[in-house]
Amino acid sequence: MLGSTHGTLTTDSRRARVIACGEQRSGPAVHGRTDDLENGAGLDVSGRPLHADVPDLTRFFRPESVAVIGASDTDGRPNTGITRQLLTWAERVGARVHPVHPRRTSVFGVPCVGSVAALPEQVDLAVLLVADPLPVIEELAEAKTKFAVAFASGFAETGEAGAAAQERLAEAVQRSGLRLLGPNTNLNAFERFRDDLTGPAIALITQSGHQGRPVFALQELGIRLSHWAPTGNEADLETADFISYFAEQAEVGAIACYVEGLKDGRAFLLAADHAARRRVPVVAVKVGRTEAGARTAASHTGKLTGADDVVDAAMRQYGVIRVEGLDELQDTAALLARAGTPRADGVAVCSISGGTGAHVADLAAAAGLRLPRLSATKQAELHQWIPEYLNVANPVDSGGHPVGDHRGRKIIDALLSDPAVGVLICPITGPFPPLSDRLVQDLTAAAEETDKLVCVVWGSPVGTEPAYREVLLGSSRVATFRTVGNCLTAVRAWLDYHRFARDYHSPFDAAPRTPSPSVRKIEALLRPGRQLSEHAAKQLLRAYGIRVPREQLVTSAAAAVRAAAQVGYPVVMKASAPQLAHKTELGLVKIGLTSASQVRDAYRELTDIARYEGVSLDGVLVCQMVEQGVEMVVGVTHDDLFGPTVTVGLGGVLVEVLHDAAVRVPPFGEEQARAMLAELRGRALLDGVRGRPPADRDALVEVILRVQRMALELGDRVAELDINPLMVLPNGHGAVALDALVVCR
Amino acid sequence: MLGSTHGTLTTDSRRARVIACGEQRSGPAVHGRTDDLENGAGLDVSGRPLHADVPDLTRFFRPESVAVIGASDTDGRPNTGITRQLLTWAERVGARVHPVHPRRTSVFGVPCVGSVAALPEQVDLAVLLVADPLPVIEELAEAKTKFAVAFASGFAETGEAGAAAQERLAEAVQRSGLRLLGPNTNLNAFERFRDDLTGPAIALITQSGHQGRPVFALQELGIRLSHWAPTGNEADLETADFISYFAEQAEVGAIACYVEGLKDGRAFLLAADHAARRRVPVVAVKVGRTEAGARTAASHTGKLTGADDVVDAAMRQYGVIRVEGLDELQDTAALLARAGTPRADGVAVCSISGGTGAHVADLAAAAGLRLPRLSATKQAELHQWIPEYLNVANPVDSGGHPVGDHRGRKIIDALLSDPAVGVLICPITGPFPPLSDRLVQDLTAAAEETDKLVCVVWGSPVGTEPAYREVLLGSSRVATFRTVGNCLTAVRAWLDYHRFARDYHSPFDAAPRTPSPSVRKIEALLRPGRQLSEHAAKQLLRAYGIRVPREQLVTSAAAAVRAAAQVGYPVVMKASAPQLAHKTELGLVKIGLTSASQVRDAYRELTDIARYEGVSLDGVLVCQMVEQGVEMVVGVTHDDLFGPTVTVGLGGVLVEVLHDAAVRVPPFGEEQARAMLAELRGRALLDGVRGRPPADRDALVEVILRVQRMALELGDRVAELDINPLMVLPNGHGAVALDALVVCR
Repeated sequence: MLGSTHGTLTTDSRRARVIACGEQRSGPAVHGRTDDLENGAGLDVSGRPLHADVPDLTRFFRPESVAVIGASDTDGRPNTGITRQLLTWAERVGARVHPVHPRRTSVFGVPCVGSVAALPEQVDLAVLLVADPLPVIEELAEAKTKFAVAFASGFAETGEAGAAAQERLAEAVQRSGLRLLGPNTNLNAFERFRDDLTGPAIALITQSGHQGRPVFALQELGIRLSHWAPTGNEADLETADFISYFAEQAEVGAIACYVEGLKDGRAFLLAADHAARRRVPVVAVKVGRTEAGARTAASHTGKLTGADDVVDAAMRQYGVIRVEGLDELQDTAALLARAGTPRADGVAVCSISGGTGAHVADLAAAAGLRLPRLSATKQAELHQWIPEYLNVANPVDSGGHPVGDHRGRKIIDALLSDPAVGVLICPITGPFPPLSDRLVQDLTAAAEETDKLVCVVWGSPVGTEPAYREVLLGSSRVATFRTVGNCLTAVRAWLDYHRFARDYHSPFDAAPRTPSPSVRKIEALLRPGRQLSEHAAKQLLRAYGIRVPREQLVTSAAAAVRAAAQVGYPVVMKASAPQLAHKTELGLVKIGLTSASQVRDAYRELTDIARYEGVSLDGVLVCQMVEQGVEMVVGVTHDDLFGPTVTVGLGGVLVEVLHDAAVRVPPFGEEQARAMLAELRGRALLDGVRGRPPADRDALVEVILRVQRMALELGDRVAELDINPLMVLPNGHGAVALDALVVCR
Repeated sequence: MLGSTHGTLTTDSRRARVIACGEQRSGPAVHGRTDDLENGAGLDVSGRPLHADVPDLTRFFRPESVAVIGASDTDGRPNTGITRQLLTWAERVGARVHPVHPRRTSVFGVPCVGSVAALPEQVDLAVLLVADPLPVIEELAEAKTKFAVAFASGFAETGEAGAAAQERLAEAVQRSGLRLLGPNTNLNAFERFRDDLTGPAIALITQSGHQGRPVFALQELGIRLSHWAPTGNEADLETADFISYFAEQAEVGAIACYVEGLKDGRAFLLAADHAARRRVPVVAVKVGRTEAGARTAASHTGKLTGADDVVDAAMRQYGVIRVEGLDELQDTAALLARAGTPRADGVAVCSISGGTGAHVADLAAAAGLRLPRLSATKQAELHQWIPEYLNVANPVDSGGHPVGDHRGRKIIDALLSDPAVGVLICPITGPFPPLSDRLVQDLTAAAEETDKLVCVVWGSPVGTEPAYREVLLGSSRVATFRTVGNCLTAVRAWLDYHRFARDYHSPFDAAPRTPSPSVRKIEALLRPGRQLSEHAAKQLLRAYGIRVPREQLVTSAAAAVRAAAQVGYPVVMKASAPQLAHKTELGLVKIGLTSASQVRDAYRELTDIARYEGVSLDGVLVCQMVEQGVEMVVGVTHDDLFGPTVTVGLGGVLVEVLHDAAVRVPPFGEEQARAMLAELRGRALLDGVRGRPPADRDALVEVILRVQRMALELGDRVAELDINPLMVLPNGHGAVALDALVVCR
């Protein structure tokens, strides 16, 4: 199985393997559940699998024989239409169809058998048109049917009773050995795909048939589609299975997904990792940006949508391109499927109007694209054909006339031959045949002869113009868009994806498989269901190599004074007790104590307040006082979909008021820990403001990675873990966890 | 002239007048420069005009006679095509054309005169096809020509020399009394507009002809366009003139603009105000989001783009809807032109797929739209036609089948009759004629009978389907979109605009016209070209009624001790000197002094440091110490385009690291000052975090308005004004300016 190599490889050998995977794509795919999973060698320290479980779906998409359970040719029955559609499809692709119905002998002239047991052969696929697919599953298992599609609705999408029925169905399928698509799905996988289109295709996965329709319709615009998996309720086969399978198909250039909820977070990550290892881009719409959307989606498919920022992070970690609208899904997936590898990340914009150029340049810069200023030599070259008074630095204003004659092609070629330019974008705001007809001809011809990306934005809202429909859509080399916004979104995604793919190493290869020695050290500290005292929480951190202040837990004023002398003045004193929150608000923290008498007074005051508040202390902490750093927060949160996640934020008001935090799903490497810091809006604080020195980023990154290790090893025993604040000292001086909250499960 | 009423009206009479304006729209428009401007009564305290100067452009757009200077019928000359186009246009609209050329007697068979002086009549419009329009202007003035269009390029867009030539042209036009469009423009105003379309139209203003092309093409989709003003370099007539004029035309439902740079910030505000008073929405693309875009735009039209956040604020203050792409400009302008007033702000989403509904609901919520949960009664009503197991709470999942028969229309009508629903959005992801053909018929029919907004998103990327091209585009009542994103952007803009329009009162009516008594008080404090001392800056604030701490400026240690006793301990002491910045970094601030001896020491230390740093003090400030508030920053910045602007931000790290600030262009009222606070990302700080009391927002708003008054009265004499920090105390306790920086011009 691909990706089964263990996490002990050096970086170089890992890279070599990844390239090998990429090269293997046109060869035979390797499928099947891995033995690794069964013997546990394929599990990380938290017991989660490390490799995608890639099903072989060849005979699902290309069955040689199909049984239609509940086939009908009675007018007006929904099953009649479906049966007819299947027969037509089967005839076209050369599959044998066996209608099954207890009270019919033929359906549309095809011999019909009375039961699954009576089928004349072992079939690849059973289409279940019956209201309750559960009883049929066992019969199919006995008949050694490979795949089934269940149309019936009324399962998890309808509430608790339906969810229970779906659970029973899933269990039956699990026992049976067959793989099931649905329930609550349809025949989208067996529609009529255009077979006259060539080149890399889009493979489509949708949790709703209607939502896949516009991507399917791209075929009418000349864009190839190879597969469509309408996953429905995913009682068995899920989005992740199709991602993994499609990533192994040679004809698939990109995978487009419409996702409402994910069945299993880890399976999704592993599938995305599998696609990333094979360098097959995945573009996804994922519902759940808002509470309202998440609620509606859950009621539609009965699946968890996950906390949206976690989903977002998980997708970015594996290079999944998340887009918002179906139009963006179409345009971005089509570009990623069809365009090759970028030759350069510079974008040149060329138009017949300085205004259009200015506008597109503005939007492109806002979208994070780079428009390099063309060299003086290149500008001089362009001015051979473009009047001197027009600006050709980039954006290039051709002024119009030159594109109406031989000069147009020269300009295009001059731009495409510039080594700084990897993408040429030509916005055409409206058809003006004397210019635009020749322009689109020149662009499509030039696109045939270059390995750079040529994009045209056909800005006319009409869309029936021959230059658009015949010339531009007729070209598989020109990427044609209808809006500048979608063009820029797609180009940005394409450049970002290839930047990601160039450097990608699977974090699963380096994920820990065996517990660290730290685990044994902290066993005694954990208190199931309880919040640990600050002192215990800090011991836990210390066991994982995270620095905490010098401190002692004392139970008398005299001991406090002795401790202060050992810790060193000034000291901080804090009441310590399990289940104690809001210490500062309760007055249970005293800072900046500089003398024995202050320490003595503080001890008395803290114990008095605790008594008054009814808090039973396990003592008072006398801690070293640490100042002069940047306050951060690092923590572990449990996500319903992905399990333990690691969060980092700027401390104090920034995280409280602005929720300025970044999250990652383990496992992740150092580069992701650094990327988390780059996502913080207040990241400039780490560079030092108001004359302060830069903070020790390396130490902060190290703490994030150690917290990740805790999340992996303790994720199932710790409900909540927060270091707040983590004081990040000036560069070279490390980071110290000044307070910590740990709640055990 | 409309809007010439002075700022002394009560709120009620002002509202009455505004309604009158709205009602007057179908009556005769009132034009012409106002006398107000000449006698100064129409100027605010800063000397800027208070009312739009609305030109009468009737004879520009509908000239009865046109002179074509430089007319040609010689094959291959650019002027030949233009002349031919003009003759065709003139014939269609019934205008008389007089070619003018020194060496021709006829052009395309039309008699040609040798010079402007030889014209047979006084013409409404002269089209200048000559390379240098300057010499012709004077001749035209003598011939009492009303309007001219100058095609020639090579002016401000080419650099300094061109800008100087344009300046000379502008001066000649100013002297002449005629109004000029251009230079660097074209004949877009005289294209063939469809005259078979009825209902409210879009009027279009573009600084680039090509950029207007897609909006013009909307006519092919059945959307009426009444005017197109391609303003080019705006040596005379500018975007603002056309906005004001179009706002007075009865047939104009919305004004769409493509703007690269604004010639005059105030003129734009007044035009936007004029349109807002008349309740004509303005939708604009404005280039300059990024540095790169601003630079390119400047080199294209030679105009200032303005600081983008200030442009953004200025537009929002006057209800101008700013969009990014030309596709959004089309869709939003078309909706605002054609849709009436919202009946309710609730949005209902209805589709034949639960997935589509979930996705659209998610995007709608993210776009800030409200999808009210339908009442139990309404849901029961819908379940008469929709199966019980489908979710109809909103989004409404019809399941498909019902829209294929009589139930479809019932569902639509039931939704439109819900008082909570003002907008119905039906996304159709692909054509499925048995359902979608009937659905679009029902939707167009229902739209004819409702005053609510019916939107359809035709999601198929193909766009040649009859249901789309014939049925949907054939309806002027259904708003049809191609993407969910653009639909939501437009609907949000429509709801926002009408919310804005309902409450709009022109801030110019209330703008101060005469200086406040404060101005006289502070005359003596200003030092042209210099930064004031902190003490002087605070006196300036005090003169405008802004509270500063109790403080005394002293020049001896003994006086400092006396001052501290009067001010009250604890005190803050600060070195005071003109031109003094970074006091804290230099160690020139001492806080929390609690005794005479500390004050004496601090005085010595401050004067020592000042001596060491070579700062010549005008004394030491002994100030009351103010704590326990929220630190804000309020200031005045000079914008190249709009003059003095007022900024408010959260103090300390938030404004420094996150640039969390809001800006407004004076004049603005209290509601805008409050809106500024609502824009701050860290606004929750004002509500009180970590158990702190809420801050005194009213006092903060009052300071913002007083600072605005300073900006208006001192804007030309003060280059920079910053209150940093303004300590906003707990509610009811006011706000105190703890430090201030004032730099005079």
